[in-house]
Amino acid sequence: MKNSNSTNDVMNKLIEVPKTIIEAPINLLKQLTPKRKKKTSAKIGLPPGSIIYLGEKKVEKVTIAVTEYDEKECENYEIKSVEEIDPFTDTPQVTWVSVCGLHETDFLKQVGEKFKVHPLVLEDILNTDTRPKIEITDDYLFIVMKLLIFNEEQKILETEQVSFILGKTFLFSFSEKSDVIFNPVKDRIAGQLGKIRKKGSDFLLYALMDVIVDLYFLALEKIEERIETLDDEVINNAEKSQIESIYNLRNLLLTIRRYVWPLREIVNQLIKDDSDLLEESIEPYLRDLYDHIIHITETIEQQREITNGLMEIYLSMMSNRMNEVMKVLTVIATIFIPLTFIVGIYGMNFPNMPEMQWPWAYFAVWGVMIGVTALMLFYFKRKKWF
Amino acid sequence: MKNSNSTNDVMNKLIEVPKTIIEAPINLLKQLTPKRKKKTSAKIGLPPGSIIYLGEKKVEKVTIAVTEYDEKECENYEIKSVEEIDPFTDTPQVTWVSVCGLHETDFLKQVGEKFKVHPLVLEDILNTDTRPKIEITDDYLFIVMKLLIFNEEQKILETEQVSFILGKTFLFSFSEKSDVIFNPVKDRIAGQLGKIRKKGSDFLLYALMDVIVDLYFLALEKIEERIETLDDEVINNAEKSQIESIYNLRNLLLTIRRYVWPLREIVNQLIKDDSDLLEESIEPYLRDLYDHIIHITETIEQQREITNGLMEIYLSMMSNRMNEVMKVLTVIATIFIPLTFIVGIYGMNFPNMPEMQWPWAYFAVWGVMIGVTALMLFYFKRKKWF
Amino acid sequence: MKNSNSTNDVMNKLIEVPKTIIEAPINLLKQLTPKRKKKTSAKIGLPPGSIIYLGEKKVEKVTIAVTEYDEKECENYEIKSVEEIDPFTDTPQVTWVSVCGLHETDFLKQVGEKFKVHPLVLEDILNTDTRPKIEITDDYLFIVMKLLIFNEEQKILETEQVSFILGKTFLFSFSEKSDVIFNPVKDRIAGQLGKIRKKGSDFLLYALMDVIVDLYFLALEKIEERIETLDDEVINNAEKSQIESIYNLRNLLLTIRRYVWPLREIVNQLIKDDSDLLEESIEPYLRDLYDHIIHITETIEQQREITNGLMEIYLSMMSNRMNEVMKVLTVIATIFIPLTFIVGIYGMNFPNMPEMQWPWAYFAVWGVMIGVTALMLFYFKRKKWF
Amino acid sequence: MKNSNSTNDVMNKLIEVPKTIIEAPINLLKQLTPKRKKKTSAKIGLPPGSIIYLGEKKVEKVTIAVTEYDEKECENYEIKSVEEIDPFTDTPQVTWVSVCGLHETDFLKQVGEKFKVHPLVLEDILNTDTRPKIEITDDYLFIVMKLLIFNEEQKILETEQVSFILGKTFLFSFSEKSDVIFNPVKDRIAGQLGKIRKKGSDFLLYALMDVIVDLYFLALEKIEERIETLDDEVINNAEKSQIESIYNLRNLLLTIRRYVWPLREIVNQLIKDDSDLLEESIEPYLRDLYDHIIHITETIEQQREITNGLMEIYLSMMSNRMNEVMKVLTVIATIFIPLTFIVGIYGMNFPNMPEMQWPWAYFAVWGVMIGVTALMLFYFKRKKWF
Amino acid sequence: MKNSNSTNDVMNKLIEVPKTIIEAPINLLKQLTPKRKKKTSAKIGLPPGSIIYLGEKKVEKVTIAVTEYDEKECENYEIKSVEEIDPFTDTPQVTWVSVCGLHETDFLKQVGEKFKVHPLVLEDILNTDTRPKIEITDDYLFIVMKLLIFNEEQKILETEQVSFILGKTFLFSFSEKSDVIFNPVKDRIAGQLGKIRKKGSDFLLYALMDVIVDLYFLALEKIEERIETLDDEVINNAEKSQIESIYNLRNLLLTIRRYVWPLREIVNQLIKDDSDLLEESIEPYLRDLYDHIIHITETIEQQREITNGLMEIYLSMMSNRMNEVMKVLTVIATIFIPLTFIVGIYGMNFPNMPEMQWPWAYFAVWGVMIGVTALMLFYFKRKKWF
Repeated sequence: MKNSNSTNDVMNKLIEVPKTIIEAPINLLKQLTPKRKKKTSAKIGLPPGSIIYLGEKKVEKVTIAVTEYDEKECENYEIKSVEEIDPFTDTPQVTWVSVCGLHETDFLKQVGEKFKVHPLVLEDILNTDTRPKIEITDDYLFIVMKLLIFNEEQKILETEQVSFILGKTFLFSFSEKSDVIFNPVKDRIAGQLGKIRKKGSDFLLYALMDVIVDLYFLALEKIEERIETLDDEVINNAEKSQIESIYNLRNLLLTIRRYVWPLREIVNQLIKDDSDLLEESIEPYLRDLYDHIIHITETIEQQREITNGLMEIYLSMMSNRMNEVMKVLTVIATIFIPLTFIVGIYGMNFPNMPEMQWPWAYFAVWGVMIGVTALMLFYFKRKKWF
Repeated sequence: MKNSNSTNDVMNKLIEVPKTIIEAPINLLKQLTPKRKKKTSAKIGLPPGSIIYLGEKKVEKVTIAVTEYDEKECENYEIKSVEEIDPFTDTPQVTWVSVCGLHETDFLKQVGEKFKVHPLVLEDILNTDTRPKIEITDDYLFIVMKLLIFNEEQKILETEQVSFILGKTFLFSFSEKSDVIFNPVKDRIAGQLGKIRKKGSDFLLYALMDVIVDLYFLALEKIEERIETLDDEVINNAEKSQIESIYNLRNLLLTIRRYVWPLREIVNQLIKDDSDLLEESIEPYLRDLYDHIIHITETIEQQREITNGLMEIYLSMMSNRMNEVMKVLTVIATIFIPLTFIVGIYGMNFPNMPEMQWPWAYFAVWGVMIGVTALMLFYFKRKKWF
Repeated sequence: MKNSNSTNDVMNKLIEVPKTIIEAPINLLKQLTPKRKKKTSAKIGLPPGSIIYLGEKKVEKVTIAVTEYDEKECENYEIKSVEEIDPFTDTPQVTWVSVCGLHETDFLKQVGEKFKVHPLVLEDILNTDTRPKIEITDDYLFIVMKLLIFNEEQKILETEQVSFILGKTFLFSFSEKSDVIFNPVKDRIAGQLGKIRKKGSDFLLYALMDVIVDLYFLALEKIEERIETLDDEVINNAEKSQIESIYNLRNLLLTIRRYVWPLREIVNQLIKDDSDLLEESIEPYLRDLYDHIIHITETIEQQREITNGLMEIYLSMMSNRMNEVMKVLTVIATIFIPLTFIVGIYGMNFPNMPEMQWPWAYFAVWGVMIGVTALMLFYFKRKKWF
Repeated sequence: MKNSNSTNDVMNKLIEVPKTIIEAPINLLKQLTPKRKKKTSAKIGLPPGSIIYLGEKKVEKVTIAVTEYDEKECENYEIKSVEEIDPFTDTPQVTWVSVCGLHETDFLKQVGEKFKVHPLVLEDILNTDTRPKIEITDDYLFIVMKLLIFNEEQKILETEQVSFILGKTFLFSFSEKSDVIFNPVKDRIAGQLGKIRKKGSDFLLYALMDVIVDLYFLALEKIEERIETLDDEVINNAEKSQIESIYNLRNLLLTIRRYVWPLREIVNQLIKDDSDLLEESIEPYLRDLYDHIIHITETIEQQREITNGLMEIYLSMMSNRMNEVMKVLTVIATIFIPLTFIVGIYGMNFPNMPEMQWPWAYFAVWGVMIGVTALMLFYFKRKKWF
Repeated sequence: MKNSNSTNDVMNKLIEVPKTIIEAPINLLKQLTPKRKKKTSAKIGLPPGSIIYLGEKKVEKVTIAVTEYDEKECENYEIKSVEEIDPFTDTPQVTWVSVCGLHETDFLKQVGEKFKVHPLVLEDILNTDTRPKIEITDDYLFIVMKLLIFNEEQKILETEQVSFILGKTFLFSFSEKSDVIFNPVKDRIAGQLGKIRKKGSDFLLYALMDVIVDLYFLALEKIEERIETLDDEVINNAEKSQIESIYNLRNLLLTIRRYVWPLREIVNQLIKDDSDLLEESIEPYLRDLYDHIIHITETIEQQREITNGLMEIYLSMMSNRMNEVMKVLTVIATIFIPLTFIVGIYGMNFPNMPEMQWPWAYFAVWGVMIGVTALMLFYFKRKKWF
């Protein structure tokens, strides 16, 4: 019941500013690139299962927070090495070890040895470009997911990898940077809200996955707001910069889709799994989670189609504008070019131009010119050019 | 046999005005946004199964109407709390409890306790952004569907969530606002039309779902009318506003598709279900319902393709118009620019221009100019420019 | 062997005029709309299985033709009510009852009662907007198909619904209007052509379905001819009206696809069905039919892709034309605008313009102008603008 | 070991002229149309299994070549009627009857009777618009395939239907016209190359199918060459005729896809078939054939995508060219229109224009005009318009 | 432990130059064409299983390197003929025979005879256009893969075919040219890094396949860099050459997709295979490999979509630019054409033009002209044309 006082504030801050705009989704994509490059270069030639951190160092200090609880008691500690966990794992209490920051790999190696985790699993935790996946063994269950957090200050969507190792009485969670997003769950444990204190480590895993999935909803809402703003902008005043925004939005949706798509399979496997690690009573919750993920994938597909539609509107607006420019040019040119020709005629210096001598010739020419103009205007009016 | 006198009028009003237009489908989509936002913000950090209403308050007062019937008798009452249902549920008669308005959650909590409904089901009823779904347990069957109602006055399509909980002898229906759409079924019960009085609660569920599916047909007809109007408009007179309409229609179809798509799976599961809740004799009806849903999904896909075609026609019409503008400009400019050059020549002030002295020079110039014009016109004629 | 004398003529007339054009495919689609509307409005609120005809009244008088045959004998009668069939159904002979016109529902009700047909089946027969489907029960087999007939006089494709009820020794066929399309089969029965007289009612069903499928081939050929004509037209002389034709063709293909697609499943179920209604020896024929249907669906998809290609060619031709218009304008303007400037210079009235006094100045100006023009023409030639 | 001397020449001629171009693929498609029309017209109303040839008469005289071989001997004969085959079929030797030309149906009827072939199979052989298919019975195996031959002289791809009937010791092959394409196999038999003489009729079938599949590779190479040529042409000099070529190529690829797609299923069924007709040792060869077919389908899909890309490049090139035309017009007009205005000013006849009297006015005007021109040119330079 | 000293350098050189650009991906595709053509021409008419090398001769001399190791020892030799391998294959040690260069087919023939490899497998090794595939027999396992290597000097992606034949204690690897890419694995064997020395030939196969898959990651990174560069270029300064680059990138991605797609099936079969050749402990590694391949296919699809988006941006930029050109023309023409008309009026030579005599007429005309210009500029300003 310790470090959870300020979590609600953090959560609210994350959520309740509704009118902000995802201004630089392209940054997200560019951010992702160096990581991936680093990974591949480092990886070729290395034996599989090498425990080397391949992501960026996103936090200064690695923190390892332990929450231990059962229906009666609940304690929060910070630890430094795996030996300090020892006493916890023997008890029937649920032990949640939350590791934030991955660049110190010693702790992970100790975990690997102590809990007999396959080296490839440890490699996946440290490689921050792993595809979302699930590995089910007799002893533990391993899940990799991607986090999408909307950074309120920089107005960008940040991405992060989260991994879980679930045992019968313990849960390890590994995140690169964000330690606040799971605080609502910590608060529920501390405040005995809902059933979480009565349930086991599998329910805790569900609760954490649920938070991550809810953050996808939030991210999609931000994108939906952006689409709506763009929608209005494009229809009212198409500009060159908008096509970049549409293009970036589309690429962003492609990236999110890659994060969410494998989750269907992951949660589906959790539902079908009949190992000892998951109790039967958790199935309705997992099915609920599955429905949410389907909902998200459908929303992504819909937003992709809407964004494609936006692109078409943008192109159509550009062509509309061209049309208008051309009409102005045509109206002006079509009226004045014949007039200029007429006045040109009487600028000629021929000595014997009969009209020249008529007393009202000048005014007659004006009459002809006004007539021609009226005719032209009538023609354009009928063509609905203005 | 009470409050159903005016239902036919309402139904007719809903249906029989055939020439109205879906003018503001975008409103529908915008209407949906605030709800969804509210939901996610409220949800993160809450334990699952929290019974909080997340939609808009669409009606002032919650009404709970009870219809109880068997082959011989039929009664309609209004109740206030769950205790008043007690006597009904013990009898073999079918008891239909129709709840309209969801913002008073006490009644739902009582239902949950009394009929042992899972908290996640109650949460889904109150969360008006739930994806259409089905949950089958030993005791009850839970269905969420979306309603599409064409609002005759505002010319918009309104959406609403409807949920059903089916027990052996009872059916709960929960709707946000519209209590009249199920009146035709109430009338059939009251008037003993068809087999409904001879059948159980499962047939009642089918009858209500059938009404909802028929309303989709109606909505698609409205959209088809709108497409046909747009079709004519675009071909005869392409305008900037039409692209917005096409874009909105497409987004509307995307939304409807998301409502209808899961129904295939839902009805399919009903057909395959072999629990006690559904009698075997209902299967042909469910298969008929399934065929209708397939028909609707095919219609949606067809309309989406037609709308895509419309977009292409629109773009082609814009480019046609540009072509015409350009042709006018080119014809005028191409005729008069050379003429202006000719008259310019004889506006020059050189003292020794031989032609200047020829007596018929002026008229010769006119001749040349008429010749050039005739040549140009002939050229344009051959090119079929007008 | 009675009313079949003129069938070959009709068939030939339907087929042998090869160069006609599907001029108004849009009419087909528009024709379909009122029907569907009527249906939905009438249907909401009605109990399922209501026996009401929802289509248009397409023929004046309903005719009920009976053909009864076995290997030795064959008779043709017309009847008025179901009682007249009684004697036929008891015999081992095949009894084919062909009902043309659906607006008198009494006969259908009698059939429903006598042969124990489910009310929903009867409803599907009368609802002319039913999706092609198959229902297999122990007593009978029910099939709904769509007919596509090319109307030679109006040059449009007409659509019609045909339903079949197959029993062990009888076959009912229901059509809205066309009684001639099955005459070739009647002729084969009368003339003892092929094996039809030696086979049972299942072979008769196959023979009739085969005729319907062959009519799809015919319709697709008409469409192919239209596509080829359009193809030539678009490439040689793109016009505004062609885009409408392409759009209508695409919508027509969408509609036909919806008619043909479910047939795959229908015939597949017939092949897999192992009830008493279908003899084993019919399987090769059904597989042949299945192959034809696959052939048709593939042709539809190909034609859809070709039509999409046509649209692209059309758009490209429009842009080509714009290009040409622009080139003409540019060539003319680029040549004459500088010339007009030159003659403008010597139209100025400055008293001390040195060139003015040179005796050959006027001719020098002409020389300069011819030089400029030649330069321009050379430039355009090199750019291949004409 | 007779009529196979010139086959290598023919084959080489077919293959080794690498730089020719498929100039008229549209001809292929147009050629196909009349055939299909004929078929449908003739077919409606006919009993199934009617043995009538529906294709064009492509060769003057039908030839029936028989090759009979086992490991020791090999003989080639020509026959006229089915009776002459009789002696062959009783022996354990492999008897290959190659029928070239289908318009004399008597032979086929005799084959049908003698080998108990289903009438629908005979109909499929004669109907040259049959979809590629396989029929497996206890007595024989029937395969229909399409041949694609590049006609070196006319530079078009010709299509032809080939059918096979495989028995335990015999193989019938039916082709419309080309009798040379199977000559390499005849040579291998005659020359005892490879294992063909040691294997049965199933290996012979494989060898013939392999030749047909290899011809697809050849056709796709011709198309690839054409695509590459078009590629260069479009990028260097986009012209109106190219869009027709792209459109025709796409339609050609659509047609080839329809020929190849069913082959996957056909060869797959051959692999899975466990009847007596195919020995087990042939499976690796069939799997190899299957891989080739997959390879071809993938190549077709890739070429389709490349062709779509070509279309986009073409359109972009057209718009580029328009851009250039517009730039030339704009540069010329923008420079000379203001100049013309300036010289127009001093063409006015006002008596009191102060500048008129200045001695250097004329040269000052020239200075202004040169300045304006320089300014404009600088502006265009900065905009990178030339 | 011999020829592996310089491998790290080679690998680093291959990887660590991050800013180079794939300038000529089209070269890759063109390079592929002659090979394929050669193949087909040579193949038609040949018996299956002919052992003829059909690719280009990419290296001067064929080298055959043998690495033999178990947990304790490790030796590297070069051999010339298959007899020299003999002693190795009898031992329980792992024998890795790495053949580089395929144009000397004698060695392969010997391998085929000695290890009883099917002739079709040998044909696939030599045909460098084989589709990636797997063949599993009781004695050996055969895999074909494609290599993608980024050539740092020429800045192109090179492709190459690699084949593996895996036996219980031996592994043959065949490559066309690149012998350095497997050096990291040789180093791990030599340096006893990871578990490779403790595992069998199946783990060696996995290690080699892993290197190939990692090279795909590298190639996709190069492409991603290129896309990003193009992205910036297109948005900042759309040019004609970019469309070629986009088109080539798309074709390149199509080609890579064809290489990677079959790998899913290949690795999947390896995982499911339960023959003696693969130990159970290798399964987690193969599943890891499978995840990487899925990752790659997803990346390819994403890059394809991004490239499509780029094309759209390019087209939109071209149209933007056209818009700007047109605006400049319109502004200039619209301002000066009316002015030229005005000055034209007073260039007319009519004797009685009243304004002519007014003393300030000339200045009044200037006033009018300045007014007209101001009006126009205001109008354009409001339209936001500049």
